[in-house]
Amino acid sequence: MIPMEVGRILEEMRTERIRGASWLARRGAEAYLILSEMLSGDELRRTLEEMRERIPAVNRTMASLYNLARFMPVTGDPEFLRAKAEEFIRLVDESKREIGNIGSELIDENEVVITHSFSSAVLEILLTARRKGKPFRVILTESSPDNEGIAMARELDAAGVPFELITDAQLGVFARKATLALVGADSVTRDGAVVNKAGTYLLALACYDSGVPFYVAAESFKLHPKLESKDVELVERPYSRNGYPVRNVLFDVTPWKYVRGVITELGILVPPKEI
Amino acid sequence: MIPMEVGRILEEMRTERIRGASWLARRGAEAYLILSEMLSGDELRRTLEEMRERIPAVNRTMASLYNLARFMPVTGDPEFLRAKAEEFIRLVDESKREIGNIGSELIDENEVVITHSFSSAVLEILLTARRKGKPFRVILTESSPDNEGIAMARELDAAGVPFELITDAQLGVFARKATLALVGADSVTRDGAVVNKAGTYLLALACYDSGVPFYVAAESFKLHPKLESKDVELVERPYSRNGYPVRNVLFDVTPWKYVRGVITELGILVPPKEI
Repeated sequence: MIPMEVGRILEEMRTERIRGASWLARRGAEAYLILSEMLSGDELRRTLEEMRERIPAVNRTMASLYNLARFMPVTGDPEFLRAKAEEFIRLVDESKREIGNIGSELIDENEVVITHSFSSAVLEILLTARRKGKPFRVILTESSPDNEGIAMARELDAAGVPFELITDAQLGVFARKATLALVGADSVTRDGAVVNKAGTYLLALACYDSGVPFYVAAESFKLHPKLESKDVELVERPYSRNGYPVRNVLFDVTPWKYVRGVITELGILVPPKEI
Repeated sequence: MIPMEVGRILEEMRTERIRGASWLARRGAEAYLILSEMLSGDELRRTLEEMRERIPAVNRTMASLYNLARFMPVTGDPEFLRAKAEEFIRLVDESKREIGNIGSELIDENEVVITHSFSSAVLEILLTARRKGKPFRVILTESSPDNEGIAMARELDAAGVPFELITDAQLGVFARKATLALVGADSVTRDGAVVNKAGTYLLALACYDSGVPFYVAAESFKLHPKLESKDVELVERPYSRNGYPVRNVLFDVTPWKYVRGVITELGILVPPKEI
């Protein structure tokens, strides 16, 4: 049985609205840390077997959860479990930093970077480029209805990176004013398609139409070893506006052919179909 | 000098947020009707000369205003002016009805029609198809920030046409679930590009990528005889969200190559580059 404290973390992960795949993976690893403090022996082993199912089930679109559940051992030894959970958390932090180093090299002087929604990997790239002293500016979408773009705007504001906010529907108007597109990913499928916040696919199409290079920033644990793009389950969270229900599919799927490269901590994967 | 009453109509036209090119053209023609009741002789002639400049200047993106100003004579005869204004208003009403007749023939049984924003021409097509007893359903975007899609939803609701509302960012997810795309136009340029609510271009790209036919409904007075797509001035109405200014370019430009046809009262123009 999963202890209540860990069950609450799973529930928190399931209902989180703004933070993405990296946060989920990290929070999941923290759940394993707590297990290593509470259980041992057969009880721990049985719980870890259950976690193999429960962690990916939090959100089946997220390769990070699939990979976390595979990474964590089924063991009765709490010390071994703790060491693996800490290793995973270190991996999350280090890969983000390395993506910042690699990705920021794509940003040249006076680059105009367009992005969509909130991505901690894209943010890391932008902040690293800023620390390197490069002058550039960013075009951000509001990302309706949860306004993740406003969260991104706050981070850039605090770091002194100049930016402009646009509505999601203006992605086509502004893609052609940009020189580089950078988005995050919740998962990259086995066949190289990018699962990310709905609207990402529209940005990719507009960039393709205008010849603007479109890059995806994703830690290697976001590459799903099994999932095919045709099998991606699109999670939905409907809401209501002026009394009418509004469909709200959270993600869309961008085929590899629109992606110039996937920036991982191991380097830039090009072309993504060969991942 | 333009009388105050007519000046107020021009101001109303300039600040209108929801209603589009057809409404503007009709309201402009009504301004001429009022002039025919107030002025005559040289005074009328001078005012009509001024209107040649003022009417297109209300919104230079709108071919309907350009064509209205060209259609109306510079005359001192109020009766002649009245007859021409009434002729234009009749043209607006009749062409919309005829677009309904022609366009509704494109809607087959169980068609799934996707549209963006509010278009009175698209609405006319959908209502005509409904009157013909065809079963079909519609996918509508909210169309942030002014929510023209909600206005469209209300009309369809009243007519008993089944529909689903989506956010603008989901245009890519839902384009592939549709079998036909229908949008309005504020103008069609000389080189066949469609100027319409920002987001239209994204829908066109997504339809093109998925093989969904993309049609534009536009009265012939929305075809601009002179404007080239590269010269389209994109009107902007910035607003503020959570303390940050948000860019709000109202229109985007969809190149002719993504358009299957332009439905006018004279028939369906294909390919649009030959308009």
